[in-house]
Formats: sequence, structure tokens, C-alpha cells
Amino acid sequence: MAIEDAVFSALDRLRIELPSWGFADTGTRFGKFLQDSAASTIEEKFADAGQVNLFTGACPTLALHVLWDLPEESSVAEVAQLESRYGVRPGSINPNVFQDQEYKHGSLANENPEVRKKALDHLLDCVGIAKKLKCRDVAPWFADGSNYPGMANIRNRKQWLAEGLRTMHDALSPDQWLLVEYKPFEPFFYHMDVGDWGMALLLARYAGPKSRVLVDTGHHYQAQNIEQIVAWLLSEKMLGGFHFNDRRYADDDLTLGSIDPYQIFRVFAEIRHYEWETKETADIAYMIDQSHNVKNKIEAMIQTVMTAQELYAKAAVIDHAKLEKCRMEQRIIDAENVYKDAFSTDVRPIICSWRKAQGLSEDPLAAFRASGYLERVAIERRKRKKASGSYA
Amino acid sequence: MAIEDAVFSALDRLRIELPSWGFADTGTRFGKFLQDSAASTIEEKFADAGQVNLFTGACPTLALHVLWDLPEESSVAEVAQLESRYGVRPGSINPNVFQDQEYKHGSLANENPEVRKKALDHLLDCVGIAKKLKCRDVAPWFADGSNYPGMANIRNRKQWLAEGLRTMHDALSPDQWLLVEYKPFEPFFYHMDVGDWGMALLLARYAGPKSRVLVDTGHHYQAQNIEQIVAWLLSEKMLGGFHFNDRRYADDDLTLGSIDPYQIFRVFAEIRHYEWETKETADIAYMIDQSHNVKNKIEAMIQTVMTAQELYAKAAVIDHAKLEKCRMEQRIIDAENVYKDAFSTDVRPIICSWRKAQGLSEDPLAAFRASGYLERVAIERRKRKKASGSYA
Amino acid sequence: MAIEDAVFSALDRLRIELPSWGFADTGTRFGKFLQDSAASTIEEKFADAGQVNLFTGACPTLALHVLWDLPEESSVAEVAQLESRYGVRPGSINPNVFQDQEYKHGSLANENPEVRKKALDHLLDCVGIAKKLKCRDVAPWFADGSNYPGMANIRNRKQWLAEGLRTMHDALSPDQWLLVEYKPFEPFFYHMDVGDWGMALLLARYAGPKSRVLVDTGHHYQAQNIEQIVAWLLSEKMLGGFHFNDRRYADDDLTLGSIDPYQIFRVFAEIRHYEWETKETADIAYMIDQSHNVKNKIEAMIQTVMTAQELYAKAAVIDHAKLEKCRMEQRIIDAENVYKDAFSTDVRPIICSWRKAQGLSEDPLAAFRASGYLERVAIERRKRKKASGSYA
Amino acid sequence: MAIEDAVFSALDRLRIELPSWGFADTGTRFGKFLQDSAASTIEEKFADAGQVNLFTGACPTLALHVLWDLPEESSVAEVAQLESRYGVRPGSINPNVFQDQEYKHGSLANENPEVRKKALDHLLDCVGIAKKLKCRDVAPWFADGSNYPGMANIRNRKQWLAEGLRTMHDALSPDQWLLVEYKPFEPFFYHMDVGDWGMALLLARYAGPKSRVLVDTGHHYQAQNIEQIVAWLLSEKMLGGFHFNDRRYADDDLTLGSIDPYQIFRVFAEIRHYEWETKETADIAYMIDQSHNVKNKIEAMIQTVMTAQELYAKAAVIDHAKLEKCRMEQRIIDAENVYKDAFSTDVRPIICSWRKAQGLSEDPLAAFRASGYLERVAIERRKRKKASGSYA
Repeated sequence: MAIEDAVFSALDRLRIELPSWGFADTGTRFGKFLQDSAASTIEEKFADAGQVNLFTGACPTLALHVLWDLPEESSVAEVAQLESRYGVRPGSINPNVFQDQEYKHGSLANENPEVRKKALDHLLDCVGIAKKLKCRDVAPWFADGSNYPGMANIRNRKQWLAEGLRTMHDALSPDQWLLVEYKPFEPFFYHMDVGDWGMALLLARYAGPKSRVLVDTGHHYQAQNIEQIVAWLLSEKMLGGFHFNDRRYADDDLTLGSIDPYQIFRVFAEIRHYEWETKETADIAYMIDQSHNVKNKIEAMIQTVMTAQELYAKAAVIDHAKLEKCRMEQRIIDAENVYKDAFSTDVRPIICSWRKAQGLSEDPLAAFRASGYLERVAIERRKRKKASGSYA
Repeated sequence: MAIEDAVFSALDRLRIELPSWGFADTGTRFGKFLQDSAASTIEEKFADAGQVNLFTGACPTLALHVLWDLPEESSVAEVAQLESRYGVRPGSINPNVFQDQEYKHGSLANENPEVRKKALDHLLDCVGIAKKLKCRDVAPWFADGSNYPGMANIRNRKQWLAEGLRTMHDALSPDQWLLVEYKPFEPFFYHMDVGDWGMALLLARYAGPKSRVLVDTGHHYQAQNIEQIVAWLLSEKMLGGFHFNDRRYADDDLTLGSIDPYQIFRVFAEIRHYEWETKETADIAYMIDQSHNVKNKIEAMIQTVMTAQELYAKAAVIDHAKLEKCRMEQRIIDAENVYKDAFSTDVRPIICSWRKAQGLSEDPLAAFRASGYLERVAIERRKRKKASGSYA
Repeated sequence: MAIEDAVFSALDRLRIELPSWGFADTGTRFGKFLQDSAASTIEEKFADAGQVNLFTGACPTLALHVLWDLPEESSVAEVAQLESRYGVRPGSINPNVFQDQEYKHGSLANENPEVRKKALDHLLDCVGIAKKLKCRDVAPWFADGSNYPGMANIRNRKQWLAEGLRTMHDALSPDQWLLVEYKPFEPFFYHMDVGDWGMALLLARYAGPKSRVLVDTGHHYQAQNIEQIVAWLLSEKMLGGFHFNDRRYADDDLTLGSIDPYQIFRVFAEIRHYEWETKETADIAYMIDQSHNVKNKIEAMIQTVMTAQELYAKAAVIDHAKLEKCRMEQRIIDAENVYKDAFSTDVRPIICSWRKAQGLSEDPLAAFRASGYLERVAIERRKRKKASGSYA
Repeated sequence: MAIEDAVFSALDRLRIELPSWGFADTGTRFGKFLQDSAASTIEEKFADAGQVNLFTGACPTLALHVLWDLPEESSVAEVAQLESRYGVRPGSINPNVFQDQEYKHGSLANENPEVRKKALDHLLDCVGIAKKLKCRDVAPWFADGSNYPGMANIRNRKQWLAEGLRTMHDALSPDQWLLVEYKPFEPFFYHMDVGDWGMALLLARYAGPKSRVLVDTGHHYQAQNIEQIVAWLLSEKMLGGFHFNDRRYADDDLTLGSIDPYQIFRVFAEIRHYEWETKETADIAYMIDQSHNVKNKIEAMIQTVMTAQELYAKAAVIDHAKLEKCRMEQRIIDAENVYKDAFSTDVRPIICSWRKAQGLSEDPLAAFRASGYLERVAIERRKRKKASGSYA
């Protein structure tokens, strides 16, 4: 009963933001595998996100990519309508300062002051859009970096980035957050200007108190201990949120928990233990950052949410008091086994009960498939894409 | 004088094949940075390759990508004309069995026999094209793999690949080679069907005696000792050739030797020592596989060839007799210092002399820049691309 | 019921060999943390292994390290007595060709023919010991390699290794196996002569038909797909056995499944699927290779066996027919979910039932702790070590 | 001439500290290969260091390991005598809080307050010793960490470490430095309490203004960009020093620059460019942290110093003004080529001139070998070790 309560209250809280770009056709650098049902418009993305939320009950918000989703002034007004139509609110606002040709050598860290200004203007626009849409989080990702030894003055670029972020931070309203993401490689390969959590933290601290660090689970060196970074950020009060995905080699953007589920469990375990110990609620934005090329996009999102719920529920059944006691007594096998026991627990039946209690189907993926939505939009969207010529 | 002779005779031999796709616009999955001077047609690629050969004197062949360069039957005839016009012959023939929508789950290793047949037909077509063009090497790269645990029967896919390769091998003429390339990740992330040199070697052996392994310097695990693989392949008589590039994290396709020049030197050193010891010439296809998004493409190729020449020349000044003596006497610091001495030697003045002796400019990059070619084709090609609407 | 049957029959079969060196004091290069209860003599190792077998019912054999466990001719006779006293048979015989001062630059691959002869003599002795003890597997690990570029002739060392292994192989009786292990780094850091599975396979093939490859789960590059290697070795009929442990960064020798349990599950899943598909039983030696510095050694072994049983039981509940159907129909999410469902299943209650049916305690670790064995031997052994002066 | 001046003035400045532990027998966890000439006493270590300094003219200080070198109060007095006898001063003081049995679960981060106190007392003793010996740098390395998920409260351990470091810091005299080193793995494998530069920086900041970060070149994740970390630490005024070595896979402690010389060059290039740009001298402690098991220890130290001089001299011939101009104009190939040109320059003849000008042999390694020192001490020390029974 205690376990059931723990899982229920955990799932009541867990909210996972969907990425608008996760419903559109994307690919690797070797090509895209197109899906008839892939979304092309912001309305289609809201519609698809609405489906994920309908069947999982856990995804009330949709992250927006400004350049792709809100290309024009009018787009902002449209979003309000979509929100009421599809039951999904706009979530984090994601600037794009990497796609335009000017950003060949970076954005805020570019040697060219005009490019830096263009980037900053876009970032400030994004803050404005976020305010209009009543979105708390602005989450810029800086693709800035260099490909070859010698070509960049790393310290100058750091300084330019810091100054730009501070300006951006100062434009935020008091209740908004600036989330600073890090990534060790790609699209630049020799150095990335915000390459790891330490760099993101220093830049966030420099920008100001409304800044936090954003942890993308795929943006680490091999063998790096992600949950240790999470623990440090928690203790520094600097953990802002996550981009969820998984990887084997690089930034593979695979489904969360598909390669190493125990690692995601351990991340959740660090957060839950922090909350248990401090009696504080950790205010963390859980966001998916996946963009599937092979799996069906909506199905993959539902699968991701179900996996997140399962791993979060496993972390919710950890016996924190016992764990901490074992740690302090240095009974290390016993402490480890507290983790292992929680992870081995099959929480799926309890999650089914929770879904029923929420009026949801016990199997969101099967229910979504049975709904016929996918087949319907595949026909409609293929027709529309063919008519518009965007489809060879 | 001995050193000068060694460098001269080494450079006389070193021939490096250029990749046709290295002159066209390409990018990362986050976007392309377009270059006005980028080649779009096969003629432009031959023209650009001709420039690299003109200034370096070391690149008489151009690797062709069948789908991109030779889309039609008639293309083959065109190549003969381009060859005489630009002084560059077609080199290895590279099939493309990864881009079409059917290849979503692989080509020769696809579960669907129709897709396997389509892939095999294309591979056999490529063998035919290679025969018509009198190209020795056919170099398929298999992007086959899977993204998630469970989704693939690895053993069955291995078997299908092996059978397809054997059929392909049997279509070769006696003097042709089948080069089997390996890659540990990307575009699939959980498993790649030809993931490492061991898999490539087993498949090549199964295919038949005209098969060799192709080593792409960027296709390895971090910390993997590439020169050891080269040594093993040499000792097994299975080294067919290289795809040259460099990397820091993943398959970054950076300029050869830009990140770790000593490693490329060591690869060359293994080959030179093998030749010294066996008195045999190692017949190895040195090919560049780089596709620059940030650097100018022609300049980057010239820089790559110059770097390859420099590192190969350093390997050429190794004192093999002394090295082997130190090894056998287990004087390990002395053996190491034979390598270090060769690598520390500034061979650039000797290379300049060699270039002069060849009637080449001492500084190929400066000479190319002074030629005005880039500016001229940039104007022409921009105009043409705009007219054709392929340029936004 | 089907699941229960599957788990029961799986556990009936799963036999895991214990390492004698896992009961002795060992450490990292920074020091050892001594345990009073650590075993010093071969009898103590048999006694401790007997405890693990007593409580788990799954460990009837003990791997022996010739130099450490069987230093003298007479030792062989002693083993027979220990076997009957402690209910554990000798398992694989592990030569030691890395510890003596002569092996500073390797053993079979040493440039010095006298050292190669010494190593070969020891290996042949080990074959003889294995025959006397009626052990099937001889499992040499070659610590051979080099630390610096240039210092080794990799091809010559390969040849010496190959010749030595063939001689060793030819001394085996028809029913014995030679298991060839690979390792990419440590104790040599620039190159290891048997660095990966491809090298091990080529050497094993060269040695002769009684050779197989031994996969140590900690001996891989980061991000390397171990289960793919297992699948290839199975399809080549070359998988001989495992050394079980886990790691985050290097060859950390942590408890099996402690860092990435899903990976071990996937290894088992490949084996089980092979058996399901071929209707053949895979004859594989499952061996633990862990040597705990921080955990209590006997407890850690029991924990390892329990983890192996749990992960093997999860693999046993995979629905192979459904899996293969999903694969062939390329329903990739469904195929993946077959794995995920099996892994999410809490098999621990069924394992408890199986233990009861075997007359074992449901919780082997708790039962062992309750037995008082550890406290008793700690007192005895501390006393003995103090008396012998081996204990500061 | 400009180049010669640049190299001369660079070499005039470059001082490299030797590690006392680098002259003693050490090994891998698989064993030690003993050297007759290995030092056992602090006098022998001073004597050996004196040889390295005698022949290189660049190593006036010797890092001391408190537990191993200064076990007793009286040792401090002895050091003054050794200093005048061998011409080498004591350099950084290195506490040892990892070897005693109490440190099984860490030192300052241990859950047990008594162990934390013991560790702190030792650290404070080390500060006292440093004061007595007039050593500026106290450089603790914390082997603290955990091996298994769950066993450690990472946040609590961070807090204990931070408090201990602050206490230690406050005991420093105003001109002393506390150098905080980081390491991602080993001897603990799941988490290390000071795992990366970000953690070291946060702890150093917390400790107080006399703290700096110590960069061990072997303590990084694979593919991590060390020079970027160096650039950030410089810009944060937090770079305290280096532990020099090289590696291919883990923390291999190979000779500096033996695996990737270009990386060390780039580290030096960042420092030189910082100094050129800021007109400030970077006060950095360059220290070797290598402990050779296969190479002769003294020879390896001389080789390391020679390599450091060569790579530092190459960095000294960088044309910083040209480099910065290329960067600002985004001529990336030209910027890269400034690095490549400097690295390709054979500075060895200039270094020979510098050595002559200093009254040194042009080839320190050959001169040392010719001196007969090694043979002499080998005989003496073997005799002594045999007599003392420390030698089997």
C-alpha cells in the first residue's frame, strides 16, 4: 500500500514536456526517412502533442522552436487558439541561433559583432515571445564552437557568450528562467563553447540569478556520471531541467531509457533523495528532446513518456530512510541493494491502476493505436504535402 | 641526402584519391553552410578535383558516388570526356544503399528480401559501372544497423550481408577489388551490422579472395589503436585502403591530421615498416573521405593532401634498421625515440624541393588561391544555382 | 505458469564458476584494503567458494590460478581432497604469464625467445595440470603489449603469439578447450597484443579447432556493443565463455550488472535467442572475474550470482516467437517492447520459489550472513595471518 | 633570429617539477617490474632528481609525498641537507589520504567523522610541513569516491570535502597555494568526489582565494578538450598547475607527449596566447606525475623534460599577432596553419644551442647514460635492498 501511494503521488507530479520538433520529419546527416503522418505545421504539432497528452495524461506542455514554429508575429496569436483546441499549452521557448548562414562560426560567440547582435536580437525576441505566451522557460542552445585547433580564441568567445547571456537574462521577467544547455561536441567537433556542465554553470551564474543549467542526457562524455552532475547542480541550486533521450556512442537522440534504463533511474533517485532530505520540492523542467527518424514519432513519444513514468515510479519506491542509514553505517552492499530492489520492482501494475484512476487507458500505446488517429492524419497529411509540392 | 632521397621516393609513390562528394555542399544534421563555389554537377567535381591535382601533383583519381554522380546510363560515357578535360581519372566506385526510403531498416541486411534484392541489384550495377570505367575498387559502405535493443536479429542480418557480398564479389573481374568498410555507429546507433574491423574482415573473407578491408580513420571507438589494426590487416594480407579524415569525438570528418597528426604518422610508419621488412610493396588505396561544411572545400582538400604528404614523408625518414634493432634488444626508449626523431624532423623544406622538381609550386595552397579559380567559379556557380532555383 | 517454468528450467541450467583469486586480498594500484576474512590458502578459497555454492546452489566449480593456487606439484593432489571436503570442483585453469620479472615486455609475444620458451613451458604445464584435475578449460590471459609507439613490432609479436597458442592447443586432449581472452588496455597502455575480439578470434582459429574466444564483459572500448560481439561469436561457433564483471570507465572489475544491468540482460538474450532459433544448447563457460577491494568478498560473490540469476531469468521470459515475428515484420517498437517487458518483469518471486524447491534459502545473502561463517573465519584467519607475519 | 630568441626566452622560464615517487618502484595492479636502480629513500630520490636537473637544467624542485618521503618529524630537517647536497629544492607537498586502511571509503568525504578528522589533521600537518620547507604549493589529491550506485550521498560528501578544504585553506600562509586536483575514475569507479574540473573549481572557490585548480593531463574523459579547460581556468584566474603525463585509454601515466604530442602543444599554446594577450605572466606549476614501471625511471624523466621543452618551444614560435588576426577575420584555415606551422618547426637545433649556452650537454639523455650513474647506483642499491631483505 505504501508503495502504491508512493507511485501514485509520484505520477501525479511528473509532468513531461513534448518537443514540437519531435513530430516533424528529421533525420541524420545521411538522410531522412519520411513519414506520411509527420507534422509540418504548428497546428499539426499541437494536434499530435494533444494525442500524447490525451493517452498519457502527463504532457500538458509543448516546447516551441521559435524559428520553426513561430516564424511570424501572428504565430503568437495562433498559439492561444491551438492551446484551447488541443489541450496543450506552450512550454519552453527555444531560440534558434544555429541554422542561418550567418551562424557558420557561431552566434553569441561569433568573432563578428554584427552576427553577435543578430543572435542577441533573436534571443531577446524569444524572451518577448515567451512573455506573451506566458512561458516560464527560455532555453537557448548554443551550437557555437570550432572545428580546428587554433581557429578560435576560446577565452574571447567565452566572454562574448557571457555578456550576451547577461543581457538576455536581464530582459527576463522576475518569474522567468533562463536555461543554459551544454554539449561536448556537434555541430562543432574540436571545441563547443558551452561544452560541459561546469561551463554552463559558470555562464549561468554570470548571467544572473534567474539562470539554471539544463541537462541533456545525451550531451556527455562516455562514462561520465550524469547523476553526479545532477547531484552537484541540486546542491548548488542550479538544476533547471532536462532534455530526455538516450545514446550509446554520441548524441544519438534515442528513446529515453532504451539503452541504459538504470542510469535514468539513478538520475531520478538523486532528485527524489534530495527532496526527501531537504523536504523541498525540486522545481525541474522535464522535457523530451528526441526526434525520431525510424520510429513513428507519436508512438515514440508515448513510449518515452511510459518509460519515464516507469523509471520515475521505480525511483519513487526507494526506501530513503533505509538507504541513508546504510550509507551512514557504510554497509555498502545493503545501500546498493536498496537501489537494486527498487529498480527490480515491477511497478507497471501500479501504474496501470494510476492510469485507470485518471480515466486513462492502461496501455496508452495500444489505445492510441486503436484510435485510428495515425492512419487518418497520414492520409490527410500525405495529400496536403503532395499538393504543396513539399513531397517528392 | 639519404633523408632527401627517402622523402622524394616516398612522395613519388604517394597517390591520394579525392572524393567527389567532398566538393559539394554538405553539412551536419543541424544544417548546411552553403558555399557559392560548391560543385553541383559531376563536371564541376571533376574540375575541382583537377585543381587539387594540378597544384599538388598527387591526386590523379576521383572517387565517384554512383547515385549522386552517375545517376544515369549516359553518365558513364560523360566521365571519359571529363577525364581527358580535367586530367583526373575515376577512382573507386561507391555504391549508395542508404539514402532511398526503402533502406530505412538497412540494405543487404534488411529483413525484407525485396529490399535486399534492390540493394544487391544496385551493388551489381556498380560493379558493372566500375568495369566500364576501368576502376579497380568498388567500395560499398553499409549503413545497415538498428537503433534499439531487440529490434534486430544480428546473426540473420550478418548472414544476409555475407551472402550479398559474396554475390557481389563473384561479379568482379579478376583484377577488381571489393573494399569492405566498417563503422561502429551512425546512422544507426545501437548496432551497425559492420561495426568494426573484425566484422569487416570476416565478411570480406566470406565474400572471397578479391575482398579487402577499408579503414576509415574516423570509424573507431575512442582510444582504439588504429595502427595496430593496420598492422594486423597487413599481416593478414587484408588491408585494402583508407578513408582519410580526423576526429575528436565521433565520426567528425575533420581534415586529416588536424586533431592527432602523430596517429596518422604511426599508421604510415606501420605500412613503411611492413614494406621495409617484407621487401614487398603494400598495394593500398589512400582515399580522402571528408566533406567540409565550414572550410572551403577545395582549399581543405589541398590542405589535406599537403598534410598527408608531410606525415608520410616523416614516416619515410624512419630508420627502420635501427628501429628493429632497438626493438629486438628491448631498448624501448631508443625505439620510441626513433619514431619521435622522425616525427620531429621538419620535412617541409624537402617537400618543397620535391614540388619544385615536379614543376609544382612550393606552396600549393597559396598558388591555388593566387589562381583566382575559386572566385571565378563562385560567381559562375552562384549564377547557375540561382537560375536553376536550387539556391534560396 | 509458462513464465515460472521458463525461469525454473533456466536456473536449473545456469552454472557460474567462481574465481579463486576473488576470495583473496587484492586492490587497486593505489593500495589494498585488507579484510580479516580474506582467504590466503587454496583451502580457504575452496572453503569460501563452498559457502557461495552452499547458499546459491549454482556454483559447483572454482577457477584456479596456477601460480597462486597450485605452486607445487603436490598441490594437484591436495585439490582432490578439497573438492570432496567443500563440494566444489576445480574449474578452468588459468595460467600466469604476467607476474614474473621476465615478463616485463610480455610472455609469448616477447622479443626474447627464452622468455617465450619459459611462458610456453608454463602454459604446457597448465595443460598438464588441467588434464590431471580433469578440467576442460584452459584460459590463458596474455598481458602482453607495449606502452609506447614504436617500441613493438606488432606483426612479429602476433606471429609469436599465434605459434605459441598453436603449440599449446596441440597439447590439449580432444575434449579440452583453449579459451582466448582479449583486452584493449592494461597492464600495457599503448597496445595490447590481444586487444579485441577480432584478434582473439583470429588467434583462436590459428591455434586450432579446440579454441574458443573468452569475453570478459569489462574488456571493451566505451560504447562497444558487447551483445553484438556475442552474437557474432555464436554465429561463428567461437563463443567459449565469459568473465563476468561490470565497469563504468575502464576495466573496473565491479559487480556484474551493478552499473548497466540491461546490457547483461541483452547478452543473455542473444544467447537464449540463439538457442531458441537453432534448437541447440550453447556450451558456454560462465565465470566470474571480480576481485573486490571494498565489498566483502564472499558477500560480493553471492550478490553477483544472485544478480546473474535475476538477469538470466529475465532473459528466460522473453517471448522469442513474438520477438522474431516483430523483427521480420519490422515492427520495431513492438520488438523493442518484447525486451523491455521481459526486463521489467520482477522475476525475484519465481527465483525464490526455485530456491525453495532446491532446498535453498530464499535470500542467500541473508542466510549466509546469518550463518556466522564470516565472523568465524575472520577471527581464525586474522590470528593465522598475524602469526605468520604476513599481516602488519 | 626571432624564433631563436623566442625559444631561448621560453626555455629560460620553463621549470618542471619532478615527482619523488617517480624514482621509486611502482607498478600496475598486476605487478611491479623492479629496477635495481630504483630509489628507496628520500636521499636517493633527491639524488636521482639531482641527476635530471644536472643534465636538463630545468628541474630545480622535487615534489614530496608526505607519507612516503617525510614519515617523521625529523625528515623535515633532513630535507634541508639533501637540498644543498643535490641541488634540488622541495617543491609541492603532496598529502596522502588514500593509503591507510581507514580511507577505505574516502578521507575528507568519508561518512565517518573520525576518518574525516584524521584526514584533516594530516592535511593540516602537510600545510605545516610546507611552511617549514618554504614550499608554496600544497597539492592534495582526493581518492574519495564510491564504487556502486546508491552507496554514497554525493551531496553530503561534497559538503564535507568543501568544509575540510576551507579549513585547510585557512591554515595556509598568505603566499601559499592550495591546488585542487580532479580525476574522473580510479581508485573508485562509480563516482569520484572531485571528478572533473568544474567540481574542482567549485571546491577551490569555496575553500578560498589561495586555491587553484590542478590539471593532470591524464585525468579526463576520452575526447575531452583539455586545452579548452585550460583556457577557461586561465580566464577565471584559477589555473594553478599541471601534472604531466599521457594516456591512451585511462589514467595510464605514460610519458608526456608520447601518445598525443599535439595536444600538449595546444595546452602550451593556450597559455602562451593568454600571456601574449594579457601581457601578464601566468604563474603555473608544471609538475610531472609519472611513475614508470617499464622504462628506466631517471631516463624516462629526462625524456619527459626534453619532450616538454620541445613542445613548449614549438608553442613559443607561434606568431600570436598573425593568429589573432586570422581568427578575427575568420580565416580559419590560415589560423589553423599558424598552429600547424609552429608544430612542424623543428626546434631541436635551437634547443641544443640553448643547452650549450647553459653549459649543458646537447643531448641530456646520452650525457646521463655516459655518466655511469645508473650502473653505479644499480649496484649499490641492489646490494642495500638485498641486505635489508626488501628484495626477494
